[in-house]
Amino acid sequence: MKERVQTAVVGVTGYAGAELARLLLHHPRLKGTPPVFAGRIDEKEAKRGGVFLTDVHPQLADNNGSASLRLEPFSWELLADRGVKVLFLATPHEQSRSWVPDALDRGLRVVDLSGAWRLTKAAHRAVYSFEDEGSQVATAVQAKSVYGMPELHRAEISAAQLVANPGCYATSIILALRPLIEAGLLDLEHGIVADAKSGVSGAGKAPTAKTHYMYAADNLSAYGVFTHRHTGEILEQTGIAGDQLVFTPHLLPIPRGILSTIYVRFREPQTRENVAHVYKQFFAESPMVRLYDTALPQIQYSVRTNYADIGYQLAADGRRAVVVSCLDNLLKGASGQAVQNLNVMLGWNEAEGLE
Amino acid sequence: MKERVQTAVVGVTGYAGAELARLLLHHPRLKGTPPVFAGRIDEKEAKRGGVFLTDVHPQLADNNGSASLRLEPFSWELLADRGVKVLFLATPHEQSRSWVPDALDRGLRVVDLSGAWRLTKAAHRAVYSFEDEGSQVATAVQAKSVYGMPELHRAEISAAQLVANPGCYATSIILALRPLIEAGLLDLEHGIVADAKSGVSGAGKAPTAKTHYMYAADNLSAYGVFTHRHTGEILEQTGIAGDQLVFTPHLLPIPRGILSTIYVRFREPQTRENVAHVYKQFFAESPMVRLYDTALPQIQYSVRTNYADIGYQLAADGRRAVVVSCLDNLLKGASGQAVQNLNVMLGWNEAEGLE
Amino acid sequence: MKERVQTAVVGVTGYAGAELARLLLHHPRLKGTPPVFAGRIDEKEAKRGGVFLTDVHPQLADNNGSASLRLEPFSWELLADRGVKVLFLATPHEQSRSWVPDALDRGLRVVDLSGAWRLTKAAHRAVYSFEDEGSQVATAVQAKSVYGMPELHRAEISAAQLVANPGCYATSIILALRPLIEAGLLDLEHGIVADAKSGVSGAGKAPTAKTHYMYAADNLSAYGVFTHRHTGEILEQTGIAGDQLVFTPHLLPIPRGILSTIYVRFREPQTRENVAHVYKQFFAESPMVRLYDTALPQIQYSVRTNYADIGYQLAADGRRAVVVSCLDNLLKGASGQAVQNLNVMLGWNEAEGLE
Amino acid sequence: MKERVQTAVVGVTGYAGAELARLLLHHPRLKGTPPVFAGRIDEKEAKRGGVFLTDVHPQLADNNGSASLRLEPFSWELLADRGVKVLFLATPHEQSRSWVPDALDRGLRVVDLSGAWRLTKAAHRAVYSFEDEGSQVATAVQAKSVYGMPELHRAEISAAQLVANPGCYATSIILALRPLIEAGLLDLEHGIVADAKSGVSGAGKAPTAKTHYMYAADNLSAYGVFTHRHTGEILEQTGIAGDQLVFTPHLLPIPRGILSTIYVRFREPQTRENVAHVYKQFFAESPMVRLYDTALPQIQYSVRTNYADIGYQLAADGRRAVVVSCLDNLLKGASGQAVQNLNVMLGWNEAEGLE
Repeated sequence: MKERVQTAVVGVTGYAGAELARLLLHHPRLKGTPPVFAGRIDEKEAKRGGVFLTDVHPQLADNNGSASLRLEPFSWELLADRGVKVLFLATPHEQSRSWVPDALDRGLRVVDLSGAWRLTKAAHRAVYSFEDEGSQVATAVQAKSVYGMPELHRAEISAAQLVANPGCYATSIILALRPLIEAGLLDLEHGIVADAKSGVSGAGKAPTAKTHYMYAADNLSAYGVFTHRHTGEILEQTGIAGDQLVFTPHLLPIPRGILSTIYVRFREPQTRENVAHVYKQFFAESPMVRLYDTALPQIQYSVRTNYADIGYQLAADGRRAVVVSCLDNLLKGASGQAVQNLNVMLGWNEAEGLE
Repeated sequence: MKERVQTAVVGVTGYAGAELARLLLHHPRLKGTPPVFAGRIDEKEAKRGGVFLTDVHPQLADNNGSASLRLEPFSWELLADRGVKVLFLATPHEQSRSWVPDALDRGLRVVDLSGAWRLTKAAHRAVYSFEDEGSQVATAVQAKSVYGMPELHRAEISAAQLVANPGCYATSIILALRPLIEAGLLDLEHGIVADAKSGVSGAGKAPTAKTHYMYAADNLSAYGVFTHRHTGEILEQTGIAGDQLVFTPHLLPIPRGILSTIYVRFREPQTRENVAHVYKQFFAESPMVRLYDTALPQIQYSVRTNYADIGYQLAADGRRAVVVSCLDNLLKGASGQAVQNLNVMLGWNEAEGLE
Repeated sequence: MKERVQTAVVGVTGYAGAELARLLLHHPRLKGTPPVFAGRIDEKEAKRGGVFLTDVHPQLADNNGSASLRLEPFSWELLADRGVKVLFLATPHEQSRSWVPDALDRGLRVVDLSGAWRLTKAAHRAVYSFEDEGSQVATAVQAKSVYGMPELHRAEISAAQLVANPGCYATSIILALRPLIEAGLLDLEHGIVADAKSGVSGAGKAPTAKTHYMYAADNLSAYGVFTHRHTGEILEQTGIAGDQLVFTPHLLPIPRGILSTIYVRFREPQTRENVAHVYKQFFAESPMVRLYDTALPQIQYSVRTNYADIGYQLAADGRRAVVVSCLDNLLKGASGQAVQNLNVMLGWNEAEGLE
Repeated sequence: MKERVQTAVVGVTGYAGAELARLLLHHPRLKGTPPVFAGRIDEKEAKRGGVFLTDVHPQLADNNGSASLRLEPFSWELLADRGVKVLFLATPHEQSRSWVPDALDRGLRVVDLSGAWRLTKAAHRAVYSFEDEGSQVATAVQAKSVYGMPELHRAEISAAQLVANPGCYATSIILALRPLIEAGLLDLEHGIVADAKSGVSGAGKAPTAKTHYMYAADNLSAYGVFTHRHTGEILEQTGIAGDQLVFTPHLLPIPRGILSTIYVRFREPQTRENVAHVYKQFFAESPMVRLYDTALPQIQYSVRTNYADIGYQLAADGRRAVVVSCLDNLLKGASGQAVQNLNVMLGWNEAEGLE
């Protein structure tokens, strides 16, 4: 018999929240148990019992009862009353920093989609300027946190109380590099270039000068050169040194999808077959990674799926390669990976509800 | 010898302002006399002499000295000191309402791009809820105001002290209908449908939920059904009764351009030749209207030009027609028409600086 | 116990074909019974056993065995050998005309996505110039054909051997008008305007001057004015006379989605409540139509769903209304509706596999 | 008094041709002397005197007589009769290979926009598989050819009979690298990565699977990895060795514009000031290059201008830098640069007609 698992989502109003709601509402193991959607709701709306989910995200309306779901005023008591076991936080970094300790104290398992608990080194966390940096509580929570990339940390995730869901750019780059690095193929001294491009949903739902249609459309712009927050994740999860990586994100005029073009140099000349073997071995048990044979991934093939797609071309000299890695920043880069982590945490099929 | 004409622009920071700046900076009659760009500038920037125009609009940087132009703190004295003769207001409606009386008092000629002074009937102005509605000053100013569509009011514009530059939707619809109405061809009792579609720049530069890339891209939405502010202009300039027109604007996922599809019924069956004759006669002296022979206008052909493009198809019965009218909402729909009005006001070639 | 139903798809290589394949592969009643994909395959490929489905549509690759599916050389024997019961034709009009008689002879039930068998009146079929027009066979087949819009013809579809799947524009317009017409609300003498806008996938997969990115992007164009092929369907399914309807399609710069803005006049003044009641009654048993309360549908909410979304605004006089109807041209406008028809034909839940 | 210069354009039907026509028609030194537009025209059209330019490019219609311009059947006699002095070829590579020798024989000066005569080394030309490779005529013509980048070869261009107009990607990358290389700043042994992204117009006007709106829109794809034809130009014009450069082009979902993100390593740590100085010195006399101070170029600022925009960020260690180079692929990357070359060839102001 199926176990009934109650989930909750805080931060459903954003783009990642909408995808998370969609995935959880249609997850085969969660049928009949919709998540509790909780958040800060103004008093007037709270009196009326909360906001309808379909008012915030009209596209979620369907004929399966979604129309009656509401965002409710958050309280720990609400979660306790509903018997919530797994809490998803699609909240700003600072909010995740302050809420997670309480959640763990109350025995909840947490999947945090923010950058709050992803980084083990204080030097890397510095970009976030967390107020509680270095505190005893924060240090203890960080020690419990598992980086939520099942392809790398499946076993730890299954036992974790706190899963720090990876960044979107970081996911696309780490999955492309880790197999080559573990196999000892790369000349890391030479350095790696990761030129990454993301759709606008990656910039969040807040209307700003940079998310205005007129700024993003018919345009391409680089940003965060040498300084993007995801750099620390990439370094920690691949073991690359800080001065060996140049990572440049760009804002693409498309709604969603990431393509990272990654430039590596091998220690010894490689054949395509050898590289293919390394990737296949590494991802043999990973249903959410698709390896491309001769073609290269494109955003159009990865978008609206939870797959990370990886392909590559070698130079004629066998010393240099270009690896192309694609994913949907809201799915494998955020909410899809969060559900994948949920599946691993609960011992379910890792791909369940994601195809 | 050329007369030196000093212009000024208030409100250069928006999209229409950028186009206006570009047109005035490259206008052959204004070479060597760049506009005075004035506005509300915070104290810190004012101390430094104002903001550089190219900081606000990097695309305006060229090798003709544009890099040294600044936005200066507005004052009537500034305009007087510089010898400004024509003032362009690309400002919000309310601001135009309050500034224009002063400008006229000081002897400036004004081209106002807002909706402040376009409407002669109080009932139509009601949608703007002007604070000074009905005041003696406002009534006097309105009496002086000329609707700035040269194809309809060339003579009045040439003598006007205040030109109310038309709305973008209104321009595309009025130009398509007026020739047919004046020729007595239309069965107005039957009613007219104007289904109009505009690019996102029409929604302004302020970042809002509706100008967010994620809202506008890959989407189409109708808005302002039965209530859009440009309705009054269309009625006043065509003589159509309020219950004879249904005008529905839509937000297109493109940066700029308007296409209006207009459905009319003729009093008597018409031939294509007859309709063509009516249009050609009407626009015989109008260099900024292009009439299409057999093809229909498309946004791609009108955009980045100051032309209003008009084409049409008749039903086999000769009783019904679909008129398609295209223009660039920032040019013929705003700043291009403003410069066209300037040309008419100063007795220059109407198309100068616009091709 | 579930009945095993074998389906086949001819014409999987197009956009509608890809969506049809995706829906059938994930349909809960068809698990473990993938469709037979058949078509014209060149000799060389045929010798190798056919083309892989994922070579044609890389986005269909997933971890459920899709990678092994192939397009096979079509023959009636192939369908017989595989025990095919329901045949989907996503083929050009002429091909459907010539294949359907054979398919019916062989006892197959057919869902034809082309325009071949949708029209009962010869005058309306004239736009297709069918070679077999008026032949005994064609007349007999047409007599068996049921227009595949479950919201209108559910009972006939459940018993039909041949279902003519509706056109995309026609679906959006018929669903919006039929309830109002049946309730006797509309002044049809006055005439109806249907201004419709569709994404580029509606123009098909063949690369042409009009499907070139440079033509479609940042553009909007009207086409087929007074002559579009879907006009006949709309007239036949609504009972509107030919001179009472003006239908103008436009090409939108988006991949998929249709929004139709429909202008009607009521015989008597109506209230919003009355109109809402009419729609609700009409669609009470129709799970794939979503009625909007106060907001209007937008393409972004309908796209990638099988819903037809309908909303409306009334003029203050209660005499005129604007109805906005949205759907995804590849789903409710093509392949989703085809699967909906399959569900009805087999007595399954109409919405199964579509949410 | 102004010299009257008659130009001719072969290949006006493509995107580069349209821009070239627009620039030449509005060039201040060519007023009243429109180019001769010549090409292969079918017999029927030839009898009617040729095709109207505005039938091919409706956006070129204006009120300055463009409506009467025609494409005429090409012949050397036509060019001679009209007194053509400068011939622009916007033709396929092979056509330029076969026509240029004849043109030079007839004393014409030629600006060739194809890749036919850009490469001095046979090894680099191999990617084009020219039929006449190695012939005496081709060798002689190549010896006369000057690479048409005024910022590098101004003096040779002014005297050249044949100017080989550079490739779009090549222009954006060469202009960014050449100043740093000439100043001896770069560690070329380390290698250079040029990750470039171009709008769809770069793929040409022929409708293909890859220029279909449905392929390009909402997508990003890498192509030509390690094999793109522009590689040879970059190597020859910068002196970089073949195994020191990795150049990856990508297809952007925008109509026009190129952004190249270029990763370099310095031999010695550099300051921003030093790098700025090197660029400023190099481009001191180059009006069509804009150097960015602290911000980075974006496609939106370069598009529809003839500027090459260059900006850069240095790593904290001063050893690594990211250079961002933007231009409009149809202007500075093709027709704008062609007109710039015309200006240089005729001793006019290099920027004339380009601002």
